[in-house]
Amino acid sequence: MSVSLKLKPNANARVLKGHPWVFANECEALLPAEHDGSVVECRDRTGRLLGTGICNSKSQIVWRRLSRERVTLDETFLRGALEKALARRQGLGSFRRLVWSESDDLPGLVVDQFGDTLVVQIQTLAMDRQAARLADLLAGLTGAAEIIFRNDSNLRKLEGLAPSVTTRSGKNWEPRWAEIDGFQYWLDLQGGQKTGFYLDQRLQHAAVAKYASGRRVLDAFCNQGSFALHCAKADAATVLGLDSAFDAVAQAKKNADRNGLKADFQGVNVFDWFTAQRDAAPAWDLIILDPPPFAKSKSALEGALRGYKELNLRAMKALTPGGVLATYTCSHHMQDSQLREVLADAAADAKRRVHVLEFCHQPADHPVLVTMPESEYLRGYILRVE
Amino acid sequence: MSVSLKLKPNANARVLKGHPWVFANECEALLPAEHDGSVVECRDRTGRLLGTGICNSKSQIVWRRLSRERVTLDETFLRGALEKALARRQGLGSFRRLVWSESDDLPGLVVDQFGDTLVVQIQTLAMDRQAARLADLLAGLTGAAEIIFRNDSNLRKLEGLAPSVTTRSGKNWEPRWAEIDGFQYWLDLQGGQKTGFYLDQRLQHAAVAKYASGRRVLDAFCNQGSFALHCAKADAATVLGLDSAFDAVAQAKKNADRNGLKADFQGVNVFDWFTAQRDAAPAWDLIILDPPPFAKSKSALEGALRGYKELNLRAMKALTPGGVLATYTCSHHMQDSQLREVLADAAADAKRRVHVLEFCHQPADHPVLVTMPESEYLRGYILRVE
Repeated sequence: MSVSLKLKPNANARVLKGHPWVFANECEALLPAEHDGSVVECRDRTGRLLGTGICNSKSQIVWRRLSRERVTLDETFLRGALEKALARRQGLGSFRRLVWSESDDLPGLVVDQFGDTLVVQIQTLAMDRQAARLADLLAGLTGAAEIIFRNDSNLRKLEGLAPSVTTRSGKNWEPRWAEIDGFQYWLDLQGGQKTGFYLDQRLQHAAVAKYASGRRVLDAFCNQGSFALHCAKADAATVLGLDSAFDAVAQAKKNADRNGLKADFQGVNVFDWFTAQRDAAPAWDLIILDPPPFAKSKSALEGALRGYKELNLRAMKALTPGGVLATYTCSHHMQDSQLREVLADAAADAKRRVHVLEFCHQPADHPVLVTMPESEYLRGYILRVE
Repeated sequence: MSVSLKLKPNANARVLKGHPWVFANECEALLPAEHDGSVVECRDRTGRLLGTGICNSKSQIVWRRLSRERVTLDETFLRGALEKALARRQGLGSFRRLVWSESDDLPGLVVDQFGDTLVVQIQTLAMDRQAARLADLLAGLTGAAEIIFRNDSNLRKLEGLAPSVTTRSGKNWEPRWAEIDGFQYWLDLQGGQKTGFYLDQRLQHAAVAKYASGRRVLDAFCNQGSFALHCAKADAATVLGLDSAFDAVAQAKKNADRNGLKADFQGVNVFDWFTAQRDAAPAWDLIILDPPPFAKSKSALEGALRGYKELNLRAMKALTPGGVLATYTCSHHMQDSQLREVLADAAADAKRRVHVLEFCHQPADHPVLVTMPESEYLRGYILRVE
């Protein structure tokens, strides 16, 4: 008989309701470390099968479901799951997320496509052991010329995995220009920060640019300048991008030049910058706030909410009447209701009338699983600030 | 000195935070009934001005803000507010909501435009007294040929107002064909149910139709058939519309014929229909659930949530693998988090993997005010049900 993880009585409601995780404190007993990275069944107290999943006693999330059925983590399973993931993204172009962890029944595997190059992130021990097989399957299914393993995320530590960055060919991936949504971007997929380009905000770049014509635009966390570039091309009056990372600012400038677009970029701390402008008259007609995740953990949430409120308040005050604020959060831990409250508080403090023009969400290649709230991390609002 | 409504200590946090309502139990004392329908200031315990608004001691909502400043409800104020409302909807076509109550600083006034005809709903005593002036201003600002007052909503009872349906010209408005989004609809703006056509789902008709090609489509609360017609035109394999209202079904058939589109419609109770189909194999590839509001009050919410869950569960079970479910709620009292839970429960019970394809919200001509959660009533999800 195969090894099973047994849940405590009453600890299985979440799993029964379709959630794919089991936490350490929900188990009657943890499995010995020799099973870390292997596939085990999960059963409730009465012995009923809840699903097959991968386990790791080193992680707080000790079990992640692969399937509600009995399955083995072999080539057949992986090929089937990858084919399904690709089918889900048909027609979404060649710059897209191809595989997204639990949303695609491949917990700990994230694959992004950048034209003929795939960037793979592996964040669970069980998937790490399948790395070579996954690379072969992905190359076969997509015809990708190269696969970069960006296994340098901090999440790997939680599973006892060491960081590494390698390529399938063994050769270094040379940074290069690539065209995404009609703009040239300098991609450094192997050496750059994160995976080099945030695919999850692509639709938002275009959504915000609709409001840019003739407006003075501030892109307050500009990264490599995607929002700023889209606004400049959409005939913004002026565009200023801010970012505390000097390499991001340098990159944004290079991208603007390459695309023949006029936009200024400054390497500054955004909070300090807003503080310095505090007494200035409102001078912006469109402000974009797309900050990095403030709340990296549940415990950091309270401070993060204060930070978001302050940031949104300052942006509202800096907007001319009728100006547009595009504000986003990519913090897993921030609920939509909390973000709403922050925005309402900021509007009240700023004494501005604020309407929602557009509600913003994750794109279809980063699909939210309705039974797993953790699969949703990105949300935002495009607001009219009167 | 003018009459002021005084709030109890600590009762003004909501108002201070930009919410435009004061409830009876938040006041130190209600104003005498002679002030019903007139304009008064609202002050906190210390005498600080919180805004100017309209009051009615008959309603649970005794005060509704017109402005944070001192204003009078005269022609100048109304003209300014109407002009702003129109400016907010520039470029949104000629079938649109033009004025939406608190979202436009005109509490109790709702104006919908259907080409050269306006449909006005008045739901507060103070606005009712301005009816003739509002009609003149609206005619002047929009050039509308006719204005229909559909003052037959139950909400009027809460303000002690009698129901009536009249036109500005005094003549009856003859029902007629009108083209909306490329489809011919029979409009009966004076005699039909509600205002005759739901403008708030127009963008969703097109959003759902994207998924219709080659699919067997069930529009389970079809009303006059908008979703069904859009899907039929988008090359659905088959289209069936259900509605418990026989006049809606007759109207939907007439609309389909007029547009030369093939769709069946049946007058049935949707719950009974799903029950009768319970043991049938999944036979639908796209199901639309756009029911009337289940939760008309906070106390009815629990039952409504059970109803929504049952409905969504049955729809998921009736969908073929990979089918699409477009599910909406227009209940003010249902929070998004509650809807999410209902959908997750239904997915778990149906043992289906359910991804969000699209998040659906109110369109820009029904703008949500970030400081007033009650201004949001419509939300939905387009889901892939595997």
